[in-house]
Amino acid sequence: MAIWFKSDNTAAVAPEVLQAIASVNTPFAAAYGDDEWTRSLQAAFSATFGCDVRVFVVSTGTAANTLALASLAPPWGAVFAHEQAHILRDESTAPEFMTGGARLVPLPGEGAMIAASTLRDALAFFADDVHSPRAAALSITQCTELGRVYGPAALRALTDVARQRGLRVHMDGARFANAVAALGVHPGDLSWRAGVDVLSFGATKNGAMGVEAVVFFDAGLAEQFEWRRKRAGHLLSKMRFAAAQLEALLQDDLWLKLAARANRLAARVAREAGPWLMHPVEANELFLRLGEARRRQLREHPAGFHFYDWGPAGQGEARFVVSWNQDDADCDRLAEALTALPR
Amino acid sequence: MAIWFKSDNTAAVAPEVLQAIASVNTPFAAAYGDDEWTRSLQAAFSATFGCDVRVFVVSTGTAANTLALASLAPPWGAVFAHEQAHILRDESTAPEFMTGGARLVPLPGEGAMIAASTLRDALAFFADDVHSPRAAALSITQCTELGRVYGPAALRALTDVARQRGLRVHMDGARFANAVAALGVHPGDLSWRAGVDVLSFGATKNGAMGVEAVVFFDAGLAEQFEWRRKRAGHLLSKMRFAAAQLEALLQDDLWLKLAARANRLAARVAREAGPWLMHPVEANELFLRLGEARRRQLREHPAGFHFYDWGPAGQGEARFVVSWNQDDADCDRLAEALTALPR
Amino acid sequence: MAIWFKSDNTAAVAPEVLQAIASVNTPFAAAYGDDEWTRSLQAAFSATFGCDVRVFVVSTGTAANTLALASLAPPWGAVFAHEQAHILRDESTAPEFMTGGARLVPLPGEGAMIAASTLRDALAFFADDVHSPRAAALSITQCTELGRVYGPAALRALTDVARQRGLRVHMDGARFANAVAALGVHPGDLSWRAGVDVLSFGATKNGAMGVEAVVFFDAGLAEQFEWRRKRAGHLLSKMRFAAAQLEALLQDDLWLKLAARANRLAARVAREAGPWLMHPVEANELFLRLGEARRRQLREHPAGFHFYDWGPAGQGEARFVVSWNQDDADCDRLAEALTALPR
Amino acid sequence: MAIWFKSDNTAAVAPEVLQAIASVNTPFAAAYGDDEWTRSLQAAFSATFGCDVRVFVVSTGTAANTLALASLAPPWGAVFAHEQAHILRDESTAPEFMTGGARLVPLPGEGAMIAASTLRDALAFFADDVHSPRAAALSITQCTELGRVYGPAALRALTDVARQRGLRVHMDGARFANAVAALGVHPGDLSWRAGVDVLSFGATKNGAMGVEAVVFFDAGLAEQFEWRRKRAGHLLSKMRFAAAQLEALLQDDLWLKLAARANRLAARVAREAGPWLMHPVEANELFLRLGEARRRQLREHPAGFHFYDWGPAGQGEARFVVSWNQDDADCDRLAEALTALPR
Repeated sequence: MAIWFKSDNTAAVAPEVLQAIASVNTPFAAAYGDDEWTRSLQAAFSATFGCDVRVFVVSTGTAANTLALASLAPPWGAVFAHEQAHILRDESTAPEFMTGGARLVPLPGEGAMIAASTLRDALAFFADDVHSPRAAALSITQCTELGRVYGPAALRALTDVARQRGLRVHMDGARFANAVAALGVHPGDLSWRAGVDVLSFGATKNGAMGVEAVVFFDAGLAEQFEWRRKRAGHLLSKMRFAAAQLEALLQDDLWLKLAARANRLAARVAREAGPWLMHPVEANELFLRLGEARRRQLREHPAGFHFYDWGPAGQGEARFVVSWNQDDADCDRLAEALTALPR
Repeated sequence: MAIWFKSDNTAAVAPEVLQAIASVNTPFAAAYGDDEWTRSLQAAFSATFGCDVRVFVVSTGTAANTLALASLAPPWGAVFAHEQAHILRDESTAPEFMTGGARLVPLPGEGAMIAASTLRDALAFFADDVHSPRAAALSITQCTELGRVYGPAALRALTDVARQRGLRVHMDGARFANAVAALGVHPGDLSWRAGVDVLSFGATKNGAMGVEAVVFFDAGLAEQFEWRRKRAGHLLSKMRFAAAQLEALLQDDLWLKLAARANRLAARVAREAGPWLMHPVEANELFLRLGEARRRQLREHPAGFHFYDWGPAGQGEARFVVSWNQDDADCDRLAEALTALPR
Repeated sequence: MAIWFKSDNTAAVAPEVLQAIASVNTPFAAAYGDDEWTRSLQAAFSATFGCDVRVFVVSTGTAANTLALASLAPPWGAVFAHEQAHILRDESTAPEFMTGGARLVPLPGEGAMIAASTLRDALAFFADDVHSPRAAALSITQCTELGRVYGPAALRALTDVARQRGLRVHMDGARFANAVAALGVHPGDLSWRAGVDVLSFGATKNGAMGVEAVVFFDAGLAEQFEWRRKRAGHLLSKMRFAAAQLEALLQDDLWLKLAARANRLAARVAREAGPWLMHPVEANELFLRLGEARRRQLREHPAGFHFYDWGPAGQGEARFVVSWNQDDADCDRLAEALTALPR
Repeated sequence: MAIWFKSDNTAAVAPEVLQAIASVNTPFAAAYGDDEWTRSLQAAFSATFGCDVRVFVVSTGTAANTLALASLAPPWGAVFAHEQAHILRDESTAPEFMTGGARLVPLPGEGAMIAASTLRDALAFFADDVHSPRAAALSITQCTELGRVYGPAALRALTDVARQRGLRVHMDGARFANAVAALGVHPGDLSWRAGVDVLSFGATKNGAMGVEAVVFFDAGLAEQFEWRRKRAGHLLSKMRFAAAQLEALLQDDLWLKLAARANRLAARVAREAGPWLMHPVEANELFLRLGEARRRQLREHPAGFHFYDWGPAGQGEARFVVSWNQDDADCDRLAEALTALPR
């Protein structure tokens, strides 16, 4: 037996998404995104975000993030991000590769959140001369790598600092859906209205098979995107099958419903995880400092819980991610198992 | 009405492939290729090719080709290819990007085929010093961009020249299935037994949804592949859905059956295209020099034939690609329409 | 004994240049080009070319050429050049490296010259879509790699074709001085007035110690140059010593006098080289098809002539370059030796 | 009047160096380093370091550092360095460019020194999987950016941590001469005997005109260097003029004499700078926290002291660098001026 809480990228494809894929399997259709389904994404995303956007389909989150950054930072630019951000910790040197060699600058911050003052202080070390990497972009992760959610005001405070210095703003929204669902705000409130220029709109972790969208709120920044995507090998020939997945998620706000469900179940588990919670559970991830004994105990539980070790060796930290398709009963079992752990 | 002969990448996904995708939609499975389906690809490809291979999944042909080339050529290397090769004409500057700036060297040749002597002559201009790009790799396209097929002997002659000079050999096999099906030989005869080190095994044009395999016949060359794939954003998180497509194609030689069908229908059309045929039809593509009037006539035909203009302006050349799922009757209509054209 | 005709980059530093270096050896001066000598280069070059230019100092011809190209072509761009151009044959893959992976497209042409019609034909194969490398720049070598000189009209014809298609124009002027001296025209006539956007102004081969200038005739193209130069490690800290070399060459047209002397001596040799001359001697280089026996005879001559083998094996071709500091008597000896060769 | 303490790269060229340049100005000599002076550098550096080395000439410190790093780290590698290191703060994104996109990881540390434990802790965050940048190299600056000097034991402790994890070690020795002179040890004790694989041997700041040496203590790491140098445009054609500078510095330990003199004069100034000294003065740099008023006072001093502001705004910090050719009397004047400042 096995109950998986490793990552939302180990989850299944939502039935609506599979159905959408099958539904576009016409005998023939134009390749490379010149099909009706891909074209209609522009309208669908514009409607979702309440403004005119330029949207592009790619197949992975790393492609989305790094192609987006390449649109914001020149090869001699510096990109500021939290030191635990996916682009710094989990995407190899893809950001450097896609940007042609820009610099990533790690920033500290509780809960994997960047404080506005932290960014301001960091920027003071970057001169506007030819010797220093040129401060060019800020990348914000939403939800953060520790499951926290930036609210509109916190985002605005942060992007204001960036803009005063001429930086453009990227959001890694691998779990953007969970953030929007958690706060119950309009998607625009956590993106363009909060100073975000381009968003990596995560779909794979939220029920898609393998697709992400890069959403530009400033069309001017998107001008070179198609060339960059093509030369990185990310222009899909049968793009309709990727576009269909996104359409299915946007349809009737399925993306928010799936995310809300994951959030709700995570909160249900969190209620029993109190003593070990390292961070507030604001979306679909839990970080627990269990200690090594309890962590082992959980792994050896008859339910066979799968989850990732986290943090430095010897601390017994663990990460649990609740996916869109997590079984209610499985979450109950985890909650019970946590309750049963020795205090 | 519309009958499509534009490209095999405008075709549908084979039902067996769609079924395979659905069949791996388990609630949870390991991400990033650590699932059972992806792992079993090693055995499936090894069985198909009759030797131990190392196989990697990517989502596009450009990714397959250029990541493969990056495994063969250093950034100061030169890669020789036909001047009409996809890597030279249709993949932007992805080869330069992925290799870190290697040089592409275009070679001429009838039928988009490279003659051994042409390669030998070209190599004479590349010195073994620090000033010249270092001759590093040969890339062969099979079938060629003009629908021709290299036989084992022609391949061997070509790769022998390459090896004498220390070059490694890549094959762009976007339509490798059509070549194998056309010659009725063992897949190994057109790859490792003929001196090929790494093959881009095309699947998307042959009934898959969006997946290609990079097959290494020399495991030593594959050592850095995973790092390169990751940093190019081509490591799929839910990889099982891509692996399943490849498994479905290899199963019971479906890949060869689909390709053989396309070849057979192309041959059927070719029988009526005699006066205008520019190249022997050896697989699933036809290149016709119709002249502008006849080309227009075909486009305005009630059947609504879709195909690409080809070649220099004013010549009235056209390319027709027959896909795996082409309708028999549609091919008959095209043949009839060709027969009816004024001579 | 040894008489060197291998290359003008084996020659000495002109006494005026050495003197200039010594003259700027003040105890202290601002670094990184913020010194008075480097700053005054803008005026000196503007006066020389008869227009406002933006000029940058670098230490090698490869740096000059490739940083210039990076200013003209995006990473997904195509740069057209003669197949024998230095950037294609002798600079490793520096052009790909500096441009971030642009494509080099080799063009044929007698005398290593590109005909306007050749460029036009080549451009027809580059579509304005995302699949094809985007035609972005033309690079012209002056004098050509075979010692030929483009006149203003030939340049204009060529750059007109480029401009009609939106390409920007670079000139590799490693021997620009020899071309200007040969034609007796104004430097502007072979550069900006003939449609050149940016010039690699060669100095090292013409009496400098190790410096080249990148001269922009369109200031808009120079905007990113300083960033590119810096990150390629080509921003010299004690730049005044490089600037002084250029100043010395421009002073009283020393650059043209040195080049004219080399040209004159080359012409003197050419008068005795008639039977074997492969190309008209228009500047300071001679290309002779001597056959292997005569080539060996010349090498074994008591004078000890040093020169490069050229061309394909077995043809006995040879290149002789006459440097600015070539001894008159040495040229006479070569002329005599040529006269004495068996016809 | 002006007395310069801005940087040792604003200083003059040593007379011995100028003389050496003139002495190799033979009419002709082989280009691209195939001359006798460049070749003899191997022996000269091997003798200086007491072991067989492979040495390469480049024209700037950025070229030396970044080409060296490219020899140690793959494009998916991580390079650890102090957060104030030149490669992180003053070389734009040249490290990313030359390495093909490796990651720079900044480490904190008093006096711009990296503690062994700091490196160890940082390494714990880098997994040996495909997602994380691969820990590949450590870069140590000697003297540090704050004028501190690592002794052999401190170096060893640091490089031991690196080696245990498989990292290779680079030393940015822009002021390596000052460190060796300061400690009075053998050059080998601060390099290969202390675990350094490759050294950027600074010369320009220490009396040369514009040349640095990259010294490999592990020949295996140097295999690709020539190709990398060439394609970065750093292969000098008239290399003898650069080699001669290095020869002159090594001759009779001139490099150490010049550095020792600068160190001695810096110490002389430091004796009067006590109240404001931020770091021990161990070589030729002083960092003073003067406060804004005193800093201004010093600038408005009749002697016209030139120096750089340092550190965060509002703190009134200043950097003074004593060059090899600093006038004794000028140092006295600075010392006196410091003494006269209000406490």
